[in-house]
Amino acid sequence: MPGNSLISSFSITSEELLGSYGKAARQCNCRNKNTPFVFSQSRPFDLIELEQLLQSVGWNRRPARRVQRALSGGLLSVGLWQHDPAFPRLIGFARCTGDGVLEATVWDVAIHPLFQGDGLGKELMAYTLEELRKMGTERVTLFADPEVVPFYKRLGWQLEPRGNRCAFWYAN
Amino acid sequence: MPGNSLISSFSITSEELLGSYGKAARQCNCRNKNTPFVFSQSRPFDLIELEQLLQSVGWNRRPARRVQRALSGGLLSVGLWQHDPAFPRLIGFARCTGDGVLEATVWDVAIHPLFQGDGLGKELMAYTLEELRKMGTERVTLFADPEVVPFYKRLGWQLEPRGNRCAFWYAN
Repeated sequence: MPGNSLISSFSITSEELLGSYGKAARQCNCRNKNTPFVFSQSRPFDLIELEQLLQSVGWNRRPARRVQRALSGGLLSVGLWQHDPAFPRLIGFARCTGDGVLEATVWDVAIHPLFQGDGLGKELMAYTLEELRKMGTERVTLFADPEVVPFYKRLGWQLEPRGNRCAFWYAN
Repeated sequence: MPGNSLISSFSITSEELLGSYGKAARQCNCRNKNTPFVFSQSRPFDLIELEQLLQSVGWNRRPARRVQRALSGGLLSVGLWQHDPAFPRLIGFARCTGDGVLEATVWDVAIHPLFQGDGLGKELMAYTLEELRKMGTERVTLFADPEVVPFYKRLGWQLEPRGNRCAFWYAN
């Protein structure tokens, strides 16, 4: 059956998933590109590759050592990888802080520009929320730049419920 | 000197501070009431007393066990205590989630209504931000209800910098 062969050509065995991407890894449902994509919470990041990804979507440069400490101090970091048996490529990222119960906050959501427009961002958010839900988190929050407000609205996020406003304070 | 005797009547010895409120405790500068107030990060909370405080400022009731887990999963919890050698009373509270480096978020800021209007809220925020700064946190964020937006503006918080909007997602 063509349908089956199409699916199987994009599939990764569960041994491959576990071996390359660790526990809680899951193949992305998105099949618009000619390769499979995988979500992982435990495959280590190359900090230079992560920095390049974040810069490709316009985030400010941050010292690698501080990023490393922030990742290990957070609640959850999700990598979205373009699967390759030898060299998986990091093409998406999101991380969360939180208390693991009542509140979580999502930061640094990024899909590499070359891979945008195929629904990977939507899948990345769905995977992240599902993992937070599994932990028992009641409420998830984020701060949306103006240009991504429509994206989060489409995904069902409530913008400024009950007139809530976000406030920022900078140490320097 | 009357001035000195006034100050000393409000003072707590450093042994008392350490013994009752733990490391990083600090007496509050606010002297408008006839008792000293103390900030503590390590004096344990009575969950019923905490719940009563949060309800007194209109927060929703939350199961004590989940609150306990959220406190232990967070980055920092600050209690503001009306000092009494035998029975310190919890009259203020704030807690933070975060990665300890790049981002922290403040939740559940509360001053008991009987103690509002004397600058304790301002002092509570100053103590909390100072502790986050000591950790090396670069940026602190919070979600402000409409009625407390002027309070945070007065304290120098930036409301929705660069058009940022806050977005909420609820697990249920």
